[in-house]
Amino acid sequence: MSSAAEPVFTLATGPVGSTPATQAALAQPVLHHTDPAFRALYAETVTLLRDAFGTSVDPVIFPGEAVMGIEAAAAALIGPDDVVLNLVSGIYGKAFGQLATRFAREVIEVETAYNASIAPAAVSDALARRGDVTIVSAVHCETPSGTMNDVGAIAGIAASSGALLIVDAVSSFGGMRTDFERWPGIAITAPQKCLGGSPGLSLLHVSDDAWRRIAANPNAPRGSALSIEDWRDAHRPDRAFPFTPSVSEIYGLRSVLLQYLAEGPENVAARHRRAAQAVRAGALALGLNLWAAEDAIRADTMTAIELPDGVDEAEVRMVARAESGVMLAGGQGALRGRVLQIGHMGPAAYPMSPVIGLTALGRALRRLGATADVGAAVEAALAAWDNNRMG
Amino acid sequence: MSSAAEPVFTLATGPVGSTPATQAALAQPVLHHTDPAFRALYAETVTLLRDAFGTSVDPVIFPGEAVMGIEAAAAALIGPDDVVLNLVSGIYGKAFGQLATRFAREVIEVETAYNASIAPAAVSDALARRGDVTIVSAVHCETPSGTMNDVGAIAGIAASSGALLIVDAVSSFGGMRTDFERWPGIAITAPQKCLGGSPGLSLLHVSDDAWRRIAANPNAPRGSALSIEDWRDAHRPDRAFPFTPSVSEIYGLRSVLLQYLAEGPENVAARHRRAAQAVRAGALALGLNLWAAEDAIRADTMTAIELPDGVDEAEVRMVARAESGVMLAGGQGALRGRVLQIGHMGPAAYPMSPVIGLTALGRALRRLGATADVGAAVEAALAAWDNNRMG
Amino acid sequence: MSSAAEPVFTLATGPVGSTPATQAALAQPVLHHTDPAFRALYAETVTLLRDAFGTSVDPVIFPGEAVMGIEAAAAALIGPDDVVLNLVSGIYGKAFGQLATRFAREVIEVETAYNASIAPAAVSDALARRGDVTIVSAVHCETPSGTMNDVGAIAGIAASSGALLIVDAVSSFGGMRTDFERWPGIAITAPQKCLGGSPGLSLLHVSDDAWRRIAANPNAPRGSALSIEDWRDAHRPDRAFPFTPSVSEIYGLRSVLLQYLAEGPENVAARHRRAAQAVRAGALALGLNLWAAEDAIRADTMTAIELPDGVDEAEVRMVARAESGVMLAGGQGALRGRVLQIGHMGPAAYPMSPVIGLTALGRALRRLGATADVGAAVEAALAAWDNNRMG
Amino acid sequence: MSSAAEPVFTLATGPVGSTPATQAALAQPVLHHTDPAFRALYAETVTLLRDAFGTSVDPVIFPGEAVMGIEAAAAALIGPDDVVLNLVSGIYGKAFGQLATRFAREVIEVETAYNASIAPAAVSDALARRGDVTIVSAVHCETPSGTMNDVGAIAGIAASSGALLIVDAVSSFGGMRTDFERWPGIAITAPQKCLGGSPGLSLLHVSDDAWRRIAANPNAPRGSALSIEDWRDAHRPDRAFPFTPSVSEIYGLRSVLLQYLAEGPENVAARHRRAAQAVRAGALALGLNLWAAEDAIRADTMTAIELPDGVDEAEVRMVARAESGVMLAGGQGALRGRVLQIGHMGPAAYPMSPVIGLTALGRALRRLGATADVGAAVEAALAAWDNNRMG
Repeated sequence: MSSAAEPVFTLATGPVGSTPATQAALAQPVLHHTDPAFRALYAETVTLLRDAFGTSVDPVIFPGEAVMGIEAAAAALIGPDDVVLNLVSGIYGKAFGQLATRFAREVIEVETAYNASIAPAAVSDALARRGDVTIVSAVHCETPSGTMNDVGAIAGIAASSGALLIVDAVSSFGGMRTDFERWPGIAITAPQKCLGGSPGLSLLHVSDDAWRRIAANPNAPRGSALSIEDWRDAHRPDRAFPFTPSVSEIYGLRSVLLQYLAEGPENVAARHRRAAQAVRAGALALGLNLWAAEDAIRADTMTAIELPDGVDEAEVRMVARAESGVMLAGGQGALRGRVLQIGHMGPAAYPMSPVIGLTALGRALRRLGATADVGAAVEAALAAWDNNRMG
Repeated sequence: MSSAAEPVFTLATGPVGSTPATQAALAQPVLHHTDPAFRALYAETVTLLRDAFGTSVDPVIFPGEAVMGIEAAAAALIGPDDVVLNLVSGIYGKAFGQLATRFAREVIEVETAYNASIAPAAVSDALARRGDVTIVSAVHCETPSGTMNDVGAIAGIAASSGALLIVDAVSSFGGMRTDFERWPGIAITAPQKCLGGSPGLSLLHVSDDAWRRIAANPNAPRGSALSIEDWRDAHRPDRAFPFTPSVSEIYGLRSVLLQYLAEGPENVAARHRRAAQAVRAGALALGLNLWAAEDAIRADTMTAIELPDGVDEAEVRMVARAESGVMLAGGQGALRGRVLQIGHMGPAAYPMSPVIGLTALGRALRRLGATADVGAAVEAALAAWDNNRMG
Repeated sequence: MSSAAEPVFTLATGPVGSTPATQAALAQPVLHHTDPAFRALYAETVTLLRDAFGTSVDPVIFPGEAVMGIEAAAAALIGPDDVVLNLVSGIYGKAFGQLATRFAREVIEVETAYNASIAPAAVSDALARRGDVTIVSAVHCETPSGTMNDVGAIAGIAASSGALLIVDAVSSFGGMRTDFERWPGIAITAPQKCLGGSPGLSLLHVSDDAWRRIAANPNAPRGSALSIEDWRDAHRPDRAFPFTPSVSEIYGLRSVLLQYLAEGPENVAARHRRAAQAVRAGALALGLNLWAAEDAIRADTMTAIELPDGVDEAEVRMVARAESGVMLAGGQGALRGRVLQIGHMGPAAYPMSPVIGLTALGRALRRLGATADVGAAVEAALAAWDNNRMG
Repeated sequence: MSSAAEPVFTLATGPVGSTPATQAALAQPVLHHTDPAFRALYAETVTLLRDAFGTSVDPVIFPGEAVMGIEAAAAALIGPDDVVLNLVSGIYGKAFGQLATRFAREVIEVETAYNASIAPAAVSDALARRGDVTIVSAVHCETPSGTMNDVGAIAGIAASSGALLIVDAVSSFGGMRTDFERWPGIAITAPQKCLGGSPGLSLLHVSDDAWRRIAANPNAPRGSALSIEDWRDAHRPDRAFPFTPSVSEIYGLRSVLLQYLAEGPENVAARHRRAAQAVRAGALALGLNLWAAEDAIRADTMTAIELPDGVDEAEVRMVARAESGVMLAGGQGALRGRVLQIGHMGPAAYPMSPVIGLTALGRALRRLGATADVGAAVEAALAAWDNNRMG
């Protein structure tokens, strides 16, 4: 029943669609990577990213989607003598622990329910028990669960025990406050989330301490596609690229950074917050449960919603896409079948997007035999959006 | 509160936004108009337009927005000896009468209320009274009123008295059935309505009889930007363009015709019909009146909605745009201030567009002090959309 | 032998290709013309155009290609009591005289050979003989001939006799110095020439005196697609568009104006001059004659080249396009078959374009049996380009 | 002296520019990777790639530029018991040997001068001496040297000894004949070379035997960004992507494959061959030496040119870019400073590109004090192009 003319509303958890300005940037002629015009554009992009990060160290634009950036960060920072304290409050945190075991002497974990957050006190306790922990790894925003960990508090605790952090900030940066300079170690994010870019790059903040540890790690990849060291200085005029970066995606990244800085980080964050509150209110009005246990830990960039028994979230998403043109996210790990997400990040966080997402979700629930009060959900979302204006 | 990242939903009465495919076409390098590649593309576009029209005579792509195409058609067909019977059921019909007086010996009118349609019997009567009428002019779809005239019946009546027609099919073609070959004379439409193209061109069907009359009209423009004769054969290999056509807009026109033909005229019409029924149901549920007096004459391409006393439609549209990112239409002639339109034509007719338009309208009404049940409107629109699937 | 992958080098006399930035602008979503974002963009574009014109009166963006803008200017300014002195040094000047006779009481002409320019003294003489001349019309750059008229001198002469000017500056503005404020009356240009935009709009400077004369002209079009008065104030916040402007082409116009102003009029003019000198030198080295009688009157925006006897310029252009991917111009009026033009305006004036144009021309001449020293032409073009750097 | 309006001619060795169709594809809205529309497009792209490869096994689209694809192929196929015979005729071959030592039990090499090709007999000899060789690695086209290895002959020899091949076909596929099904093992190529796509992906043909060996390799990356196994079946309806592929680059890849197949492999190859012969003839006429020792081993996709003593190729390239807008390639390894390349692959192989490249090169040489007969070079290139038509 859909046609090619029908727009697609990508209210997922990354990619999240793209603005016309981003698309225009992606369409620019593909220059050679050594072209001085491209070299200048690349260096400018590093500077824009540093401004967006609000940091003083030049960040690394690493070729490869976020999953690759996380693997590269782990491979670089975690050496054979390291003990990693991995914090697990969801599927992504769990997966990182498995990755870390490839590189670490030992990986220990603090784990909590997947609809909860890591208690900072549990981190203190673990570090008190294990004075040999050298690296703490945390996921800032657990996308499948729609939950946040308090990385600010965790960073303070880690710092006092001398450990470095590896923070997956993929789905938080750009939508919620991040403070990379106070999180010593490595933070990883990506363009296709709150920035609204195209996937294919990782964006890394690496602290000076982390660079020193990487240099000292005999197993850190070098001369490899997995080496972040190889790309550390790639933007400097006297250096060359280790290999050809994705020219078009650098164009896209520059564009989304310009858009982000022009709108202003505060405004962007406020826009995400309003969308989050509208979607949460609407989901409740649809008669659904929010997956995250409490409001304080809910992310502003996506809302994880638990579906009624007997309704498969994958089917719901399929129907929402087919009948309403709306693409939702879900289907990950232990939450598969039960929990889906409405994304409201980057270009997917605007006044009408909660209405669109909730309507598509409600229609699909009804088509699959559940009850859903779409009208109430729309009204609740509008009320939340408008209330939040003053907030 | 809006940002550059915020999408605009153009639910107006033309232009109505554009699909990614259309935008990609508009972005193609600007060729010289005599370039053989452009000449071939232009000729192909004429053929595609003929296929979309479903006619056997090559149509005319006339440079200039629809208003100019209508002026050129009138200037060409209406000679100093002609008596024009102009049918007035709205603002556009009224304006045509004024235009026709520039060219005609005499213009007589049949007029009805602007929320009604011309009764074919009134046309018969008028022609019976005035056997010297040579041209009947009608607006197929009166955009500001959201109403249709029964041009099929009128054409039959005109034919039996030997009169030719001038039909403004600007906002009907592509969304509702047109039958240009049974409407002898000239029919005018444009790309920026149901085709979802960019404004700047007129698309004309001119019957053989009409061409003969134009050739015999001593005052028909020739060697002028207003001459449709100059463009009649511009696509033929042995001819040249009278002047440079708008290269980019020809690219856009070709693209929207390809999209239209790929989706299929029947499917396109069904999509318009469903959107129309959803918007009408939703507007009633918002507590508003549909402007058109009865359902049978309501257009499938836009819905004209009468606002409550004390609410200015221009203000409503301003708020809907500012707070919801939704662009509605309105503000024309005698209906200014009272009647606005939700457009659902071309790329603006899809499952979610009634929800978006009605939500924006309802929110704006409330902001301006009126009451509006947005939830009920959304539910009514969804019900109508879904019911219509079987219809 | 060509493929879709093969680039086209449009070295013609308008359109002249388009930059990636222009194409990206044309690809932006089509907004409704009453959308506040579009209204603001339109008003900004008028200001940018005024800056590019270097004038203090707001210019008019008139919907319709330059030929239409010229017709509209003539219809507006030339009233039934006017006597027009039309200056003819080429095909375009001749055509304007025919157009003017539609509106004027009388049209008198000063004519010269089509490879020469109008002597200002001849204008003085004509005005001395005919004190009743109220309008002087001139073509600044005669595209088919590649020649300039000294409109500065002519303007001074016209001013002293109280006549207003109509100047066709279509293919000069943006590539060579124009001084619209010292040319009282109307000057017409267009985006698809030295600005490198897409065809479909006319850009008019109308002096205050000219506006007064238009207001007093009983026959000036009003309420018509040919009315420039209707568009005079269309950019003001308290006005509406007479009809829908070509949204995409306004996007394109804004973009080319931004590019022009960023490069700087002086730099743009220098770039045109260098390209002109390179093409002229190369054409001579090919063994061909420049059509314009002397260097002082040759335009910097295109070079008209006379072909050897027995070689048809249309065939040469066809071969150059088919075998080299290069589109040249030619084929107009009395010069058809004998004189072609290499355009070097806007995005077609860059270091490599003379080489490309001359190589394609030389190859085509040889294919058609003429002799042509392509190597010498390339060397001559490079030498001229490099010499001119210091100039 | 350059402006933003100035076109860039990318006559390098990848990326090589992009056609308007490719750019339009890159500009399409970024869909979510699990969107059924994207899943279908991805599966279609795998099929198009298989058609372009002319193979029967589904190829692998591997996220990461060619360097990463080569690393991943080596990591997958070369196990701890393997002995690799690495064939070295240039910088890329040499680098592969270093890479292979990370994974292999032993790497032995056959090496020749960097302006020559590997003699198949040398491969036979080596395999005769070392019956334990399990993998033979070869570079089909050594980009910095502009030379080809006879992989067809080498494949036959390897097959008779039961060894599998790893072939770097990055800069040959799409411009010259490749025969992946007769080269059992893995062949790697990329979109940004002869296909004219954007960099960021590797395109792999993996034979059934190679897949079996990978499955048996205990060290083959799994659950890693370097794992080609993870992506083997990613296009199948019942599978999911291991992680988010680069959505925009898949759009670009699909587009370049469609363009390649529409033009036809034979026609594409002929276009590359003509461009190669034109550039070679022109370089000789400029008074320069072709780096490759003999014509039979010269690649059709780029020409490596040795510069006169005292002229630095990096400076030449800088001047060519700055003064002529032409981007050449060079500066690699032992050839740095002495040998540059004019690329003529993909969209950079068309009738005018040899003229453009040679003119820019000649101008730059002269600017740096060398002599260069640009006119002669252009004439020689045209003659070669035209002669080759009949060839």
